[in-house]
Amino acid sequence: MSEQYVVNPVGWVESTLHDRDAAPKQGDEGAPDAWVRLEPMMLDAARDLEVGTDVILLTWLDRADRSVLTVHPRDDERRPVRGVFSTRSADRPNPIGMHHVRILAVDGTRIHVRGLEALDGTPVVDIKPLLGSADER
Amino acid sequence: MSEQYVVNPVGWVESTLHDRDAAPKQGDEGAPDAWVRLEPMMLDAARDLEVGTDVILLTWLDRADRSVLTVHPRDDERRPVRGVFSTRSADRPNPIGMHHVRILAVDGTRIHVRGLEALDGTPVVDIKPLLGSADER
Repeated sequence: MSEQYVVNPVGWVESTLHDRDAAPKQGDEGAPDAWVRLEPMMLDAARDLEVGTDVILLTWLDRADRSVLTVHPRDDERRPVRGVFSTRSADRPNPIGMHHVRILAVDGTRIHVRGLEALDGTPVVDIKPLLGSADER
Repeated sequence: MSEQYVVNPVGWVESTLHDRDAAPKQGDEGAPDAWVRLEPMMLDAARDLEVGTDVILLTWLDRADRSVLTVHPRDDERRPVRGVFSTRSADRPNPIGMHHVRILAVDGTRIHVRGLEALDGTPVVDIKPLLGSADER
């Protein structure tokens, strides 16, 4: 039961955000547009990404504290402590960031996205389409 | 740029699904209810999970082929090949499963969820709440 799995980043975030304390907590709370620079070997995986569509970007929040199990939501000490599985805290056992972003431009393996709260240099783990209704899949 | 990150599973799926070829492709396509058995040390992280709420369950699809960059969507050979970042294929460089499920019951670190297409034994990586509107966070 102690199996481990290795995440190999498929790319990295290029952003004007460098400071965790100054970053917005979610993409729709004033986060800047940013670039995702994918590894060149990921060109085929990315080849059907379409400008104007929304995707889910998964990242590895590499500056998170993985030992944290409970937090004050939104770092607000007045709010009661909650288990991290009921929060979007970056600090959690496996710090995977889940970001709903719109694709603004695609230049080979560089993807410009709207409203991303991840910090500059954050590893990118995966990109997934949103699921439409079952008969559109 | 070749940094790696290690996922330590926080739990495992207990399901009647054992065969990838027979499993539904998404949770709302006839997937059975299933149990998530979390590690005992995750009790605090899980303590505020509420019956009747929807959450995002992230898994590590350990039977996936990580070398796959393009697929026929839904294993349908009549459909044109697409880059995996535009599909929900389990086969992809970092095979993280993203499942929208409803919590049916919570028994300590055992969570009963509705409609999960993950196979029995699939490692669980994270649980996240859905995001409501910005003023409800």
